[in-house]
Amino acid sequence: MTHRIAVIPGDGIGNEVMPEGLRVLEAVAKRFDIDLAFEHFDFACCDYYAKHGKMMPDDWFEQLKDFDAIFYGAVGWPDTVPDHVSLWGSLLQFRRQFDQYINLRPCKLLPGIKSPLADRKPGDIDFYVVRENTEGEYSSVGGKMFEGTEREVVIQETVMTRHGTDRVLKFAFELAQSRPRKKLTSATKSNGIAITMPWWDERVVAMSGNYPEVSVDKFHIDILTANFVMHPDWFDVVVASNLFGDILSDLGPACTGTIGVAPSANINPEGKFPSLFEPVHGSAPDIAGKGIANPIGQIWSGAMMLEHLGHKEAADAIIAAFEAVLTEADPAVLTPDIRGQGTTQTLGKAIAERV
Amino acid sequence: MTHRIAVIPGDGIGNEVMPEGLRVLEAVAKRFDIDLAFEHFDFACCDYYAKHGKMMPDDWFEQLKDFDAIFYGAVGWPDTVPDHVSLWGSLLQFRRQFDQYINLRPCKLLPGIKSPLADRKPGDIDFYVVRENTEGEYSSVGGKMFEGTEREVVIQETVMTRHGTDRVLKFAFELAQSRPRKKLTSATKSNGIAITMPWWDERVVAMSGNYPEVSVDKFHIDILTANFVMHPDWFDVVVASNLFGDILSDLGPACTGTIGVAPSANINPEGKFPSLFEPVHGSAPDIAGKGIANPIGQIWSGAMMLEHLGHKEAADAIIAAFEAVLTEADPAVLTPDIRGQGTTQTLGKAIAERV
Ligand SMILES: CC(C)[C@H](C(=O)O)[C@@H](O)C(=O)O
Ligand SMILES: CC(C)[C@H](C(=O)O)[C@@H](O)C(=O)O
Repeated sequence: MTHRIAVIPGDGIGNEVMPEGLRVLEAVAKRFDIDLAFEHFDFACCDYYAKHGKMMPDDWFEQLKDFDAIFYGAVGWPDTVPDHVSLWGSLLQFRRQFDQYINLRPCKLLPGIKSPLADRKPGDIDFYVVRENTEGEYSSVGGKMFEGTEREVVIQETVMTRHGTDRVLKFAFELAQSRPRKKLTSATKSNGIAITMPWWDERVVAMSGNYPEVSVDKFHIDILTANFVMHPDWFDVVVASNLFGDILSDLGPACTGTIGVAPSANINPEGKFPSLFEPVHGSAPDIAGKGIANPIGQIWSGAMMLEHLGHKEAADAIIAAFEAVLTEADPAVLTPDIRGQGTTQTLGKAIAERV
Repeated sequence: MTHRIAVIPGDGIGNEVMPEGLRVLEAVAKRFDIDLAFEHFDFACCDYYAKHGKMMPDDWFEQLKDFDAIFYGAVGWPDTVPDHVSLWGSLLQFRRQFDQYINLRPCKLLPGIKSPLADRKPGDIDFYVVRENTEGEYSSVGGKMFEGTEREVVIQETVMTRHGTDRVLKFAFELAQSRPRKKLTSATKSNGIAITMPWWDERVVAMSGNYPEVSVDKFHIDILTANFVMHPDWFDVVVASNLFGDILSDLGPACTGTIGVAPSANINPEGKFPSLFEPVHGSAPDIAGKGIANPIGQIWSGAMMLEHLGHKEAADAIIAAFEAVLTEADPAVLTPDIRGQGTTQTLGKAIAERV
């Protein structure tokens, strides 16, 4: 059975890390005899938007909907296209139109990667952030009144539905249930955001009835971010709304020092539409073109994609491979962000060979 | 001239740290010959709410509006009153009705307080978070539809005004201008929250025209929280909307290890209404009644209050006093959270004596 993968490198370092992601996928596909068929798409700010005045062709949905997965680099080039235009014209469209309602990101201390936190070592921090990925605070509803005057008022609506909330909670509870610690933490702000968030808390309580083995706690988002720094070992699975999940899934990898290498999965669990796999880092205009971007985020995202496609063993082999290369810590191989003198390619090749 | 101060200890450890806050204020008032007149109010969950079914009497506004400041402990007792009820019935009312539109919190590494970050020492981290404190994401506008059914939809509106946004930006720019580094960072999320936040960015640009000496940058809230952990030394003054400021002003003190001791000021800069000064920590039901809460947050808030009332020298004396006691680090004096065996009182008394 062939898995058809749509490849969208995007902008900036997306174009540099993607070839390494593919290199490693090809190596592991060979070893485990998996049939992957890649098809490339140039949907990006540079040059697609420049030529066409939009991020993607009008029939993008038709073109992509029958793929088994989307392997995505990073989109954004603020010098020419404002971020909200490029993101709402690409990544955020996929998340919504392909109903990728789960955004899943591991936060894990890795060998050879320095954490900014004192006294933490691999094994101490190992949790997932499960983020609602289609609704909530990321809404397109709202507008301006008295625009351009002193009386200007700007409104943006947060929209949560029981349908959208219960399904992400269900996914998070199932994930917690499948893990040894069986612990779920809910991110809330019901003391301040007085309509949506107390309701979110109620849905968590309602869902918890179905998972008696899972222990549940909740923290307001302010003290929760504080606890990520002070007590990252407390967490196993953290579930959050779209915005809170966005914040926590950058902060979590920052605490483990892995923000440059963290992966993420945008999942439609029912498989009705393709899921999308992308590194957490963006297009990084500041280092684009230098060939020094760390490709591990793209490679690790490839592992998440394989796991999603049913190849857990192959996914684990990729993770073992980059952990081994990190443990070896050959400065000629590693990229500058992790104290090496190598390039995107030297690191990508080393991992592919190890596979 | 007498400064009339309304004292509201509130719930839980609010009642334990407040006497120490007052003890230190009385000591410094004596030394600097400042005339402070305290009047106590029992507005809280325990027992006011229990007796009256509300957090404050109906005429609270009249009772409090002519005070020069409000010295506040912490309110909240979730076992008997849900947090959104107690907070919207007290603290959040003050912030709005007394138009305390600035929430100001220092993030500073202190001697003798361990930071969870590796390799940071006093002097390395020293910045302010300026938070909009009356509008934005904390709105009471919204509601539910199809309540209690599968089709349930819950909406909450973020409301920003030019009036409300420009005045907090102005305060932040002035503060940045008054500091040696003259650096302002704006918290945004204009790549995802596509109506309010791109507009916030525009207001920052517009205001920056009036402050050519201040250098300005901006980060999306997700990577900004990450940068608080990875590069806290980058920041001088950070300005943020109500929700983002709430998050950053807990995360900042968490990074300096000072979340249990950080102060905050809720300021009406025009002095039309009283400003309110409170520690960042809450009522802490888990340690309430044990007499071990750290009173420095309350004491430091008292220093911010004195500075606001025009007594900068006295404020500095308080800060110098608790820094000295922390540097001495006598375990018999310090509270358990900072590796001592003392009590709220031993620490409060030591600081008052030092003053
Ligand atoms: C208690 C809560 C409503 C409050 C807030 O969110 O503003 C608190 O977290 C704060 O920062 O003062
Ligand atoms: C680029 C941006 C719109 C996006 C988001 O906020 O969802 C990113 O931060 C992410 O987390 O994938």
